[in-house]
Amino acid sequence: MSSLRQLGELRIIRIMEQSFGNSRRAVVGFGDDISAMRLTRHNLAVLKTDMLVGSTDIPPGMTLRQAARKAVVANVSDLAAKGAKPYAGLVALGLPAVLREHDVREIARGLSESARYYGFSLVGGDTNESKDLVISIALFGLIDERKMVLRSGAKVGDIVAVTDSFGSAPAGLRALLDGKIRPQRLPQALARAVYHPRAELKLGLRLASTGAITASIDSSDGLAWSLHELSKMSGVGIRIGSVPISSAASEFADRYGYEASDLALYGGEEYHLIVTVNPPLLRKAQHAARGRLRAIGVVTKKSEGIRLAGRNGDIKIKMKGWEHFRR
Amino acid sequence: MSSLRQLGELRIIRIMEQSFGNSRRAVVGFGDDISAMRLTRHNLAVLKTDMLVGSTDIPPGMTLRQAARKAVVANVSDLAAKGAKPYAGLVALGLPAVLREHDVREIARGLSESARYYGFSLVGGDTNESKDLVISIALFGLIDERKMVLRSGAKVGDIVAVTDSFGSAPAGLRALLDGKIRPQRLPQALARAVYHPRAELKLGLRLASTGAITASIDSSDGLAWSLHELSKMSGVGIRIGSVPISSAASEFADRYGYEASDLALYGGEEYHLIVTVNPPLLRKAQHAARGRLRAIGVVTKKSEGIRLAGRNGDIKIKMKGWEHFRR
Repeated sequence: MSSLRQLGELRIIRIMEQSFGNSRRAVVGFGDDISAMRLTRHNLAVLKTDMLVGSTDIPPGMTLRQAARKAVVANVSDLAAKGAKPYAGLVALGLPAVLREHDVREIARGLSESARYYGFSLVGGDTNESKDLVISIALFGLIDERKMVLRSGAKVGDIVAVTDSFGSAPAGLRALLDGKIRPQRLPQALARAVYHPRAELKLGLRLASTGAITASIDSSDGLAWSLHELSKMSGVGIRIGSVPISSAASEFADRYGYEASDLALYGGEEYHLIVTVNPPLLRKAQHAARGRLRAIGVVTKKSEGIRLAGRNGDIKIKMKGWEHFRR
Repeated sequence: MSSLRQLGELRIIRIMEQSFGNSRRAVVGFGDDISAMRLTRHNLAVLKTDMLVGSTDIPPGMTLRQAARKAVVANVSDLAAKGAKPYAGLVALGLPAVLREHDVREIARGLSESARYYGFSLVGGDTNESKDLVISIALFGLIDERKMVLRSGAKVGDIVAVTDSFGSAPAGLRALLDGKIRPQRLPQALARAVYHPRAELKLGLRLASTGAITASIDSSDGLAWSLHELSKMSGVGIRIGSVPISSAASEFADRYGYEASDLALYGGEEYHLIVTVNPPLLRKAQHAARGRLRAIGVVTKKSEGIRLAGRNGDIKIKMKGWEHFRR
């Protein structure tokens, strides 16, 4: 019998999905960023849960207030990718007994200010003692089914585009975890990416409303992983012209001997959007994104896999990312 | 600065509530068993989250499958008290790395069989590594606002009634935690109460549909605590004629030198319903409950407090229950 560390998160998720089955009630079930149920003819209730765990999700130097905000961002980002608006949230807390009143206030502040920022209300919760700090958030949102963008709609010939460059958060995390740089010395761009991630909610809603986006996913598990997910759910291949690497990640990689494209491809903990666009509507999408949409590749036939164009021919992009239990 | 253990759960909840504020979106917000938002003129979306933590919520001898079921029961029970039907659920897991595939399957089985039992679908989730086992469930339900029963509707003169006798689960937990009886030696009634709690969903729905119930709460924090909550939210007092003690709790208390009424009043981890009934409709409520509704007291003026009738005059029922961080 293998332990969870050997088993890996994917296998655990598969066990859960097999046990739960896919409900007829779910218009969108397991396998996408969110779940959705029909409320009226066109309106869906969107549900999402994402849990932040202190021992694995809080990097050195992150305050509890920042951690609470990150817990909210991780949930909102998945709704953003679908074009769904968060409406109300629940928060279940597991709090180590050593925390103090000030810590609880910091967590509460982080939660409430980010809920306000993304325009939803925290309406209920639960508080427990636990060994690990746990901030488990469940979001309830609403969406018009006709505007919802799933992972599964990409078509051969569509343009693959991203809302930002990649690698800053992974570079910052590597710097901290490998002890290259102390938290207070982290270059500003890396620190911002690690400690103050933002969910692209406005951008996601604007993009979804154009009708130009055929598939969408957030990049929290890394660019490579997300491309593989889009490919799997849409039954297509993807060919990327070049990896969109942030300048901060490039500088860090050059200076400390990392591979910048690996940081950008296989990092994770970034909350950008990766979308596929119907080519005749690209300009409309770019207009809605106000210059924040960068074409990086095209959707190909499934048999062609997930590839990156290189000088000496294409390179396969591995299905690798940030996975719990396996590090 | 006080640590959480000194601070107590109530104070933590107050800090959260103050930070979050009471949203205009919430028809029912903090302070009741569930939160609710308006969907249409009469229909509300009901949201609930409750987290089970291994180190504090899993008693000796409980299997992971049973723990998973208990996590579901704790959530469903709160919907049952309001007359709300669960529709879909999310489950966020924190799993210690030492668990094995078989453990994960047992958790998945417990979750899926109890979801099926209570008639809802598990539609999404999240999996993480954590030091403590954490099963955080969020339920989404639907309710006709006109049938919803809050904690706040009790009126002076109403009858206080319960759906079961109390003390079996607390007696079983005391037996295990104080080392009086080993898990496999636990008398059947205590073992059932500890390892196989049930939420009174059908009963709660039937009672709510009568229109006879003026206020309702589940008893997961103990009979005394729940009476105090009903009193606070309704602005009334309560006078109980006698404590409804289960025979299994009485036998255990007699044999091992515990106070049976303390177990029944101040125990918790039981999922019965405590309701107040409009007197002229008592028979209707009892009919709907099919003999499972027992009158134990009356609603009085607020100034009279929460009391228990005694041979030598009334006794105050303390606001005491099972509280995290303070034991």
